[in-house]
Parts: sequence; structure tokens; C-alpha cells
Amino acid sequence: MHYREVETRREFVARMETGADWREEIETLAEAAEIDAGFFYALGAVQDAEVLFYDQREKEYESVSFEEPLEVAACMGNVSWLNAERFAHTHAVLSRPSGQAIAGHLDSGTVFAGECYMREFEGELVREFDETTGLDLWL
Amino acid sequence: MHYREVETRREFVARMETGADWREEIETLAEAAEIDAGFFYALGAVQDAEVLFYDQREKEYESVSFEEPLEVAACMGNVSWLNAERFAHTHAVLSRPSGQAIAGHLDSGTVFAGECYMREFEGELVREFDETTGLDLWL
Amino acid sequence: MHYREVETRREFVARMETGADWREEIETLAEAAEIDAGFFYALGAVQDAEVLFYDQREKEYESVSFEEPLEVAACMGNVSWLNAERFAHTHAVLSRPSGQAIAGHLDSGTVFAGECYMREFEGELVREFDETTGLDLWL
Repeated sequence: MHYREVETRREFVARMETGADWREEIETLAEAAEIDAGFFYALGAVQDAEVLFYDQREKEYESVSFEEPLEVAACMGNVSWLNAERFAHTHAVLSRPSGQAIAGHLDSGTVFAGECYMREFEGELVREFDETTGLDLWL
Repeated sequence: MHYREVETRREFVARMETGADWREEIETLAEAAEIDAGFFYALGAVQDAEVLFYDQREKEYESVSFEEPLEVAACMGNVSWLNAERFAHTHAVLSRPSGQAIAGHLDSGTVFAGECYMREFEGELVREFDETTGLDLWL
Repeated sequence: MHYREVETRREFVARMETGADWREEIETLAEAAEIDAGFFYALGAVQDAEVLFYDQREKEYESVSFEEPLEVAACMGNVSWLNAERFAHTHAVLSRPSGQAIAGHLDSGTVFAGECYMREFEGELVREFDETTGLDLWL
């Protein structure tokens, strides 16, 4: 367990734009407010979604596309620097009209409506390549 | 992306009452502590649940009822003013004994046990009708 | 609704160790930083998982094991004292490559990668046996 004490500097609530991309909206907030490190939480609905699953053996992402309206029942993630850009690492739980849940790493999704809360930590979180997992990890 | 910087005023932890309604318990906390804006997170279990799914084309909610005990694996949402009342916009991920997950907008559910954390922001969040989505949105 | 106003003392971000146990990593952080009460949020992936479902009638936990890699789409919970030990009450939503979601009380899971945010409250949360539910509850 690698850990670091952090201090919250600013907090934001946001409403995502209908028709925009879910993850890009979060990165737009991070960019606009110059957030270098933070955690966020969001809920709402999307018109479609692309969900990634990391193949732990092959060390690569597989993608599944859902071309249908879905509720965003829960979404959480964090903002850090990756390859000199602000990156929103975004996981989400989506659902269909029957209540059936779909979940994973949310790469993209067209916003129908979305409400977000983000807290910014002092300092930076920077992702670097980790050989064991093949992922870009911070700390 | 519409956003606003917020400041946390107070924070609360709460235990929900067995037999009460999940969403009403959250609104009871907001009412008792006079919270006009905030985000909350909760987990626990319910004895039944009514989950809503918003039909983005018809612009109306469809309801699915689950008359069975369910874990509340994740619940998040926010408190704002809607039609002159404090409203807890509540999304949740529920699960069955097999682990099967059900998710969506949680309208109601009979609490078996529930643990909640809420943070209150200074000022108010007020929902108003949005023509594009047919939803009541803030900001 | 039983509630208590709390004050945040410290905040932490953490990266979980590949190969360690998911819940134990959270308890290791709580132990190392001497956290007596707090809420946490996490996301990542596990190599396997044991998920519990509480049988509300029989008042006992049933266990389901998943011997497969899973994304941790959402994880939330809290730290409190239970039987003189720091306990991380941990709920999680997991997912398979198809996007299929599994959820419940996460007893254990082998970390593939994990990112956690924890906030510590002043004072203590202590769990005590509740006869109505058969669970150990705080407040």
C-alpha cells in the first residue's frame, strides 16, 4: 500500500452538457479549473457508451460498445497527469430499462444529463508506466 | 460544461432506520440539518426497491419494482431544491444473492440497514425544468 | 435516522499493491495512518473476489466466489472499530469482460490494481450488535 496525505484545495459541482462526451466533460472541467489532482463522483444518463475491460493476462484493453440509452447509476474516478495531459480515469455503472447493470472503465459516452462533484487536491498526481500490470499508475 | 466552485460547510454521517424508506431517510437528514445543497454516498441493504429508468425519447420515467431483499452496493446522489422541497436525487446499484447487479434511479426502497455520508455546500442548488431533456436540472 | 455531524481531519490517496487483498489493503492504510473513522472510495481491478450477501431472514452472510479477473467499477465503504479492530466495511460493483455487473459486500479479492481516496473524521465510529438486523452497526 503506497499512500500520501493530501489536502483539498477547491471543490466543484458541475452539470454536463447534453450531447457532449461524458469523460471529455470531466476533463474539460479539470482543464478549465486547472485541476492537477482530484477525485470525482457523477451520476446521470448517457445515450450510448463504450466500456473497457482490461485483460490482465494480455495486458491490453478490450472494448464493448452499447448503442442504447443507459442510466449512469454510479460513476467515480480521478484526475491526474498522463503523457502531459490531464486524464480522467473514469469507472461507471450503467443500467438498462429492466434494471440490468453494466459496468467497467468508461472510455466514452454521449451525455444525456450528468451531475458531477469534484474535489481538487494540492499538488499533482502523475501516472507512470508500471511493468507488473502494464498500466499507467500513480504513486 | 456548467460548473461552480463550492465550499463545504458541514459534514454528516448517518445510520438509516430499519423499515423506513431509503430516499426519505436521506431527505429527513437534509431537512433536519437544513441542508440546501450537498452530495451524499451510502451503502447497506433494502428489503425491496423501486428503480426508475428515464425514457430519453418519450421523456418520462418507467418504473421497475423488486419485491426482494437486495444489497445496496453503491448509492450516490445529491440534495437540491425542487418545487420548494428538498429533493434527494438518488442513484443506486443493488444486488441479489447470486451477485447479479441491478441499477438505476432509486425512487424508494425499504431500509434494512444503511450507512450514509453527506457533505453540505454553502448556498443552494435549485432544479429547474430543462426543455432539451425534460428533466429538472441544476446550474 | 440517527446522524452525527463530523469534521474531516486528514485525507489520503493510496495505490493498492498488486497481489495483496483488496479489503486488507484498505485496513492497512487505516492502521498505518491511525484512522478511527472515515469513508473511502476506490476503483481498479481484482484477480478474483469473494462477495457476501446478507440473508435478512436467516441473519447470516452467504458467500459467492468469483475465480476470474474483474474490474472494480465502484467501491465505497467506511472505517470503524469492530471487536477492538479497525474494520473496513466494503461494498463493491465488479464487472466481467462483457460488461456484466456483479455487486455486493466485498469480503476479499486479490488486487490487480487499485486507487483509493479516504477521508478521516475526528473521533471514532464504533460498531455494536443490533438485534433487529443481526448486524454490527454504528451510531
